[in-house]
Amino acid sequence: MARGAGRRVPGKRVAVLGAGSWGTTFAKILADGGADVVLWARRPELAREIQEAKRNSDYLPGINLPIGLRATSRLDLALAGAEQVYISVPSQTLRQNLIAAEPHLHAEATIVSLMKGVEKPTGHRMSEVIAEVLPIAESKIAVISGPNLALEIAREQPTAAVVSSTSMETAQSVASVSRNRYFHSFVNTDVIGTEFGGVLKNLIAVAIGIVDGAGYGENTKASIITRGLVEMTDFAVAYGAHPDTLSGLAGLGDLIATCQSPLSRNNTAGRLLGQGYKLPEVVNQMQQTTEGLASVGPILELARAKGVEMPIVEQVRQVLAGTLAPKDIAPHLTTDDEPQGERTMDGQAQGGSALRRALQRAFDQLRHGGGSAPGDRP
Amino acid sequence: MARGAGRRVPGKRVAVLGAGSWGTTFAKILADGGADVVLWARRPELAREIQEAKRNSDYLPGINLPIGLRATSRLDLALAGAEQVYISVPSQTLRQNLIAAEPHLHAEATIVSLMKGVEKPTGHRMSEVIAEVLPIAESKIAVISGPNLALEIAREQPTAAVVSSTSMETAQSVASVSRNRYFHSFVNTDVIGTEFGGVLKNLIAVAIGIVDGAGYGENTKASIITRGLVEMTDFAVAYGAHPDTLSGLAGLGDLIATCQSPLSRNNTAGRLLGQGYKLPEVVNQMQQTTEGLASVGPILELARAKGVEMPIVEQVRQVLAGTLAPKDIAPHLTTDDEPQGERTMDGQAQGGSALRRALQRAFDQLRHGGGSAPGDRP
Repeated sequence: MARGAGRRVPGKRVAVLGAGSWGTTFAKILADGGADVVLWARRPELAREIQEAKRNSDYLPGINLPIGLRATSRLDLALAGAEQVYISVPSQTLRQNLIAAEPHLHAEATIVSLMKGVEKPTGHRMSEVIAEVLPIAESKIAVISGPNLALEIAREQPTAAVVSSTSMETAQSVASVSRNRYFHSFVNTDVIGTEFGGVLKNLIAVAIGIVDGAGYGENTKASIITRGLVEMTDFAVAYGAHPDTLSGLAGLGDLIATCQSPLSRNNTAGRLLGQGYKLPEVVNQMQQTTEGLASVGPILELARAKGVEMPIVEQVRQVLAGTLAPKDIAPHLTTDDEPQGERTMDGQAQGGSALRRALQRAFDQLRHGGGSAPGDRP
Repeated sequence: MARGAGRRVPGKRVAVLGAGSWGTTFAKILADGGADVVLWARRPELAREIQEAKRNSDYLPGINLPIGLRATSRLDLALAGAEQVYISVPSQTLRQNLIAAEPHLHAEATIVSLMKGVEKPTGHRMSEVIAEVLPIAESKIAVISGPNLALEIAREQPTAAVVSSTSMETAQSVASVSRNRYFHSFVNTDVIGTEFGGVLKNLIAVAIGIVDGAGYGENTKASIITRGLVEMTDFAVAYGAHPDTLSGLAGLGDLIATCQSPLSRNNTAGRLLGQGYKLPEVVNQMQQTTEGLASVGPILELARAKGVEMPIVEQVRQVLAGTLAPKDIAPHLTTDDEPQGERTMDGQAQGGSALRRALQRAFDQLRHGGGSAPGDRP
């Protein structure tokens, strides 16, 4: 059909599944980039508000959504003809959502995960769950990650992200749609590193929140972020990631944004714990899912399986379990309470618990060059 | 002389030159660690306040200094018998202060730089200036750096730092004195990387301040920190540093603490610029020296000499010169205003300024693995 010179050629038909703050924001990114977007919301009343009022007052209060953005609570309508399907549902519900979506998927559709988490019973990454449930080639799966606080992007603050797929062609195709004047997409082919970056930073963000809640300042937090990046990199590399990915936007970039944001749920959960609230109270108080809290157990299991030590994440687990006082996280990391005479020149404390010894090893690693570097791997 | 069992053996006699916030805080660190410290203040009235009232109300209001900490405005008295001399004077006055100190220095004294800056006319690091002026072996010079916001340490928040000397023995000897229950010192032998980390992070902190003042959020700032660490590492490695040092406490750690702290002078200077104040107004408003502003010119000259590109620092220079509007820093980095059709898949904009092309190169580098990593050097 011919169109007038002033008319815009309709963009690629895409779907976004999940109308929480990130799913809705990503639908806005895509629509503002020119795509023809249908957003699926589980609740009919939320779909209706987005479709009719161009608002999502539960998750993005005050944000005007694009006029062209459509929404529905019918999965079949959302998926009909969609060449790219972006998924942003709670990570523990991904499997059941994929099973429901499968009959309605376009045969050639690319599936893009916007999620940052691992499935609890299996410990699988989101792209792995997608590959297990859907009968599609790995090359048709992509993931997006980076320093992407949803509310800032919804307010159109300049932001960069990484689109990753084992197929560079798929990554570029997704990046060309997920891009607009305030959202810049880069591409890579390290899906493992990109996904683990997004999972692992949540755990360090909880640690930072705890330290914040306990009243410590920027010096302490900067030391934990520096050391936390090494833990993240050790873990991801043991599972096949490229260390560079963890030093980039999907690792360090996301870690910093999450740790510094008062909007981060992981950070907030940690801060409440640091202030002395118990885990059930914190879970009660948080309206939305807190991936960082859910990931601690599975990640530590995966770390143990590969012999990776994660002293910071281990301390977070102990705070969650109520066996370590929040205020003791930072002192363990940066001070010692042995008398000076019992500490040798290289900082090795005499005696002490297994935890202390593990931390001492971590600190000893830091000593070379002032801190072991992400790139410095076997 | 025999002492009672309850009496403490007097610590090593050390001197601290410079009674600003960092010099005074470091004198407290040393005294709290058991050393016998004399702090030299240029102004007699300040020396008297510290000596008699155990306060430094100009630079550390509200902080109680250790009872045992002595202060004087007489350089000869401060230096008499000092085995270690810690220096924290404005970087542009180091040379003249060293010339004044030299006649009074203990023959075997170790000189420790606490400063983060380069000498403006020569572009030399602080340890280089020390080696030029004083007739001592390089092995008797050390530097200390890390995520060390003075006021937080003065409040005894848990903090870690790096002591660096080409002689490991000297580094360990200094670290054993610069250590107490809230201050943990690690050691390395990469003086170049340790010093440049402390210099370069100030420039990125100014950039972060500018972006903050212009109203951008955590996503934008996290991208600039991630990319800024790559610039810092490129520069330092070109001058002989080990990349690991920049990924550790003296690089990434210090960068994060400085960028996030509302107490940082560099950050504050940037924020005022970002809000639209002109450079002379900002310089006027800042009571203390802002190393980041003074270092921009010398560092860019040193970068050019080695062919290192520093697009973020270059943009800071342009904002200081008034040739780039503060609000244009982040859009240059993370968005493009070309129509979508003129942008090829790999993000290469057609045409545009030299600056745009330089930034595009920087972004292209970021694309591999989601960001080039500090460790990934030739």
